[in-house]
Amino acid sequence: MTYNHPKILVAIDCLVFGYDTTENNLKVLLFQREVEPFAGEWSLIGGFVNEDEDLSDGAERVLEKFTGLKDVFLEQLSTFGKANRDPGGRVVSILYWSLIKLDDLHRDIANEHGAKWFDLDQLPELVVDHSEMLKLGTEQLVHNAKSRPIGFELLPEDFTLPQLKQLYDAIYGKSIDDRNFRKKILSTDLLIKTDKKDKTTSKKGAFVYRFDTEKYNELRKQGYHLDLNV
Amino acid sequence: MTYNHPKILVAIDCLVFGYDTTENNLKVLLFQREVEPFAGEWSLIGGFVNEDEDLSDGAERVLEKFTGLKDVFLEQLSTFGKANRDPGGRVVSILYWSLIKLDDLHRDIANEHGAKWFDLDQLPELVVDHSEMLKLGTEQLVHNAKSRPIGFELLPEDFTLPQLKQLYDAIYGKSIDDRNFRKKILSTDLLIKTDKKDKTTSKKGAFVYRFDTEKYNELRKQGYHLDLNV
Repeated sequence: MTYNHPKILVAIDCLVFGYDTTENNLKVLLFQREVEPFAGEWSLIGGFVNEDEDLSDGAERVLEKFTGLKDVFLEQLSTFGKANRDPGGRVVSILYWSLIKLDDLHRDIANEHGAKWFDLDQLPELVVDHSEMLKLGTEQLVHNAKSRPIGFELLPEDFTLPQLKQLYDAIYGKSIDDRNFRKKILSTDLLIKTDKKDKTTSKKGAFVYRFDTEKYNELRKQGYHLDLNV
Repeated sequence: MTYNHPKILVAIDCLVFGYDTTENNLKVLLFQREVEPFAGEWSLIGGFVNEDEDLSDGAERVLEKFTGLKDVFLEQLSTFGKANRDPGGRVVSILYWSLIKLDDLHRDIANEHGAKWFDLDQLPELVVDHSEMLKLGTEQLVHNAKSRPIGFELLPEDFTLPQLKQLYDAIYGKSIDDRNFRKKILSTDLLIKTDKKDKTTSKKGAFVYRFDTEKYNELRKQGYHLDLNV
């Protein structure tokens, strides 16, 4: 038994934000399209959905191909479906977004697939409606940073408070108040202070912290809402 | 120029919440499927997307067919795309949700199309993953009621504070504190008090209010966030 109606191409596009702790900036993964139309132009990473593939599996496949990563933050954001959005044909595209910790390994894997990490303020022109997708994703990043611990997806497991603040500076696109930020983040009681000190940026050093994922998940079940609006 | 990849059926399902001010309860619009599989079983209203149709136009078409309404609250929520979700074939479905003020007219239009308004606590079993869609939509309703003025989409333009509270009781599924609610809603300064009184429910009567949409939109542009968490 099958339905009798014209079918449509379904694609997945994946907006991947990576945070570079060396440069302290947010980057986006883009790749150069290999097929016409727009061959050679820059695009979010993506691909068509296979007939026998769950959407979420398709998104994982695309992400793994270009980053080598599995089991990282990957969520559906929105579906783009203007009839004439792509001159190559009618394509409905489901946008996913992912957040990763960026290191040299990911640069190498990206290079192998014609992809590259771009600074947010040095982006090339993007194909079809991918600028709109990027805009939506950037808004979601700011919005989510206020109410979910997504920042910790972008940082190494061990981090210092100055590093955490720099990340939030990068997400909000401005320098946030340091004292207020420390007060707010420590008052959540969700950071575990370790004995270790990071002395790479100052003589005195900065204590190394970890996010208490277990405690957060437990609190969430009880209806807790994180508030990091700074 | 066209892409060479297998195509997939794309559908729209539309979760419509209607608020009945006579009965003071929330209802959902469902219709009895006419085609196999699941002919005769209850489903969210929906249909396949046409090749030359924007997704949002498809959602408006489905909504208007079953409610007679245009230009009402209608937003995309999420896309459902498990490979085996529908035994009738591979269908990716984009879920939209809509909020309307329910009156007898809508009951008549729904009847004409084999559709019916159901109380939230008296729902029949739904086809494929539509219960999951309903669950997501119900969570969104509660979540959005706290941070956006979506309640006013469900009420007539003129309403009393007791009516507004009853609506929020229905959304949250519990009786909220009356004094706290009044204080919170009036402190937003977004309700316009009219000279009129509604005397249908008490001798003393209750003043009639309107939501100040213009002021709200102006404040939104300045970064204002509504907080109706009660």
